[in-house]
Amino acid sequence: MKLLILSVVATTTMMATTLIDDAKTAGLKAIPGNTKAIEKLTSNPNNPTTATKVELGKMLYFEPRLSKSGLISCNTCHNLAIGGTDGMSAAIGHKWTSNPHGLSSPTVYNAVFYNQQFWDGRSPHLEEQAQGPIQAGPEMAAPKDFVTGVVNSMPEYVKMFQKAYGKNVQITFEKVADTIAVFERTLVTPSRYDNFLNGNKKALSATEQKGLKTFIDKGCTTCHNDIALGGTMQPFGVVAPYKHMNVGDFKGDANGLVRVPTLRNITETAPYFHNGQIATLPEAIKEMGRIQLGITLTDEETASIESFLKALDGKKPVIVYPMLPTSNPSTPKVDVVNP
Amino acid sequence: MKLLILSVVATTTMMATTLIDDAKTAGLKAIPGNTKAIEKLTSNPNNPTTATKVELGKMLYFEPRLSKSGLISCNTCHNLAIGGTDGMSAAIGHKWTSNPHGLSSPTVYNAVFYNQQFWDGRSPHLEEQAQGPIQAGPEMAAPKDFVTGVVNSMPEYVKMFQKAYGKNVQITFEKVADTIAVFERTLVTPSRYDNFLNGNKKALSATEQKGLKTFIDKGCTTCHNDIALGGTMQPFGVVAPYKHMNVGDFKGDANGLVRVPTLRNITETAPYFHNGQIATLPEAIKEMGRIQLGITLTDEETASIESFLKALDGKKPVIVYPMLPTSNPSTPKVDVVNP
Repeated sequence: MKLLILSVVATTTMMATTLIDDAKTAGLKAIPGNTKAIEKLTSNPNNPTTATKVELGKMLYFEPRLSKSGLISCNTCHNLAIGGTDGMSAAIGHKWTSNPHGLSSPTVYNAVFYNQQFWDGRSPHLEEQAQGPIQAGPEMAAPKDFVTGVVNSMPEYVKMFQKAYGKNVQITFEKVADTIAVFERTLVTPSRYDNFLNGNKKALSATEQKGLKTFIDKGCTTCHNDIALGGTMQPFGVVAPYKHMNVGDFKGDANGLVRVPTLRNITETAPYFHNGQIATLPEAIKEMGRIQLGITLTDEETASIESFLKALDGKKPVIVYPMLPTSNPSTPKVDVVNP
Repeated sequence: MKLLILSVVATTTMMATTLIDDAKTAGLKAIPGNTKAIEKLTSNPNNPTTATKVELGKMLYFEPRLSKSGLISCNTCHNLAIGGTDGMSAAIGHKWTSNPHGLSSPTVYNAVFYNQQFWDGRSPHLEEQAQGPIQAGPEMAAPKDFVTGVVNSMPEYVKMFQKAYGKNVQITFEKVADTIAVFERTLVTPSRYDNFLNGNKKALSATEQKGLKTFIDKGCTTCHNDIALGGTMQPFGVVAPYKHMNVGDFKGDANGLVRVPTLRNITETAPYFHNGQIATLPEAIKEMGRIQLGITLTDEETASIESFLKALDGKKPVIVYPMLPTSNPSTPKVDVVNP
């Protein structure tokens, strides 16, 4: 009996070793197991991460006065309390405007690991991405000079920018976005899956390991790979068109490619797909099989993949809610009703 | 020289002692100097404050899914990052609706010390107050059964309610509001002014002490008294009508009385007055003198009072941003565009 158990354990361990190898061969990569390595991996060499920049970036991320109304912050649509998104099929912004293309807000958690930002991948990194929604009419609707006017009007912000970038810093719109991006680069959520890939063979249960194997064997890793399990531009509807393609007018980039969303914390980021028309994970998994791989996934296979996906739920960074500087008469006035 | 300095110090100390006595005679009261005493003072005997209730209440305070749209939380209009309010003259809520009476969002910080809640004082305590904006059409617009449906759909919430109130707890709408209120009762901000009233005679500068004396001598404490320096129902426009009374249709309660706002953290809660038509503190101070006391405050007197008011800026509690439970298919669907 003892021998049998030992033998089963040995077999399981061997299988786990093979699975880790298979996962790596399929292009999957772990978030590193230690903080220093994560910092190195996520820091922008052109704008290195420092504690001051992160703190300042966090303040700006939660700062509603960067929007023309004074009501909407980055966190409104990428709410760090609910998976870094808003739970909506299409984002709602300034003056309650729906996203004109019917697009949902992608999660900001682990977005640092994407090769491209936005659903059409039009932005190469978070620094540029952060400039978009602040200005976009249906989102925060704030002109660049409004944003710099707000930040420069409050001495506490000016001092923090000086501390972060040096006494002679010019607080430009781009600098504001850069700083938000530095904060976003810290929004990384290591999971049991990462522990597994990093060598802890017991970090995933047998069921979850089986799910990972199904995930690889069925071909999901063709698009969902690397650290983000997503983040590259890929054809969408390879074998058959997405059943809700007619909701919204989004057709991908100029070549019809769509930025693959991360699968990390996928349990928290429903509704799914670019237009948020899929409510549940099983439905999303089956639809992906149908339109991308040309296969019909059985209920059992779907459940197996789902059990793996749930193991991607990660540990969120602790975020102390920032206390923001006080507006003063020189702070540009918000315009709520008539922008 | 030494004797002169000692004599000046002695005189200043004596003056401070007299001023503290005068302040107490005028009805001013400090936030107690120790945490235990604050907890005792702010806890509701019918629903005593516990750590679990505070944590749960914080989650619900930041919970956008309590609103019909899934976008608006208590924190949207009572933003703890910017003085517990929204910086707007009139609140904006569900579907970008302005407050129909042109009323601004009062700060939630130190609201526990009010005798009445809402501008017309229609609610006796935070437990009842919290029920209002969640349901109000222009605010969060959520029917009671929607709210209980949301909370009961997520096992993490159910478990926390059980931990907070016992295994057999019924998660009613009223219980949700009660729990939010428990969190709000912790939003207390002790200041240097409190240290001064509690006996630290050096906690306020000579200028600030002079400001406090002016504040008392001119009669401001007639309405701005007790711990909140506000929070009771008082006549508004005693001597002359408020110059912006025509903005919005608010006329106070049935007897024309208006709930006096707290002066704590007043630097952070502009624009001022119930309809947010006064942009700066000096203007607010002078208008109060004119319409409530029938006096014309000089620039010097106004600056003196302002210097005291600035000493009411308090120390905010540290708030770790909550990570909220995950929605699931049984969670009532949010309705953004067509409520």
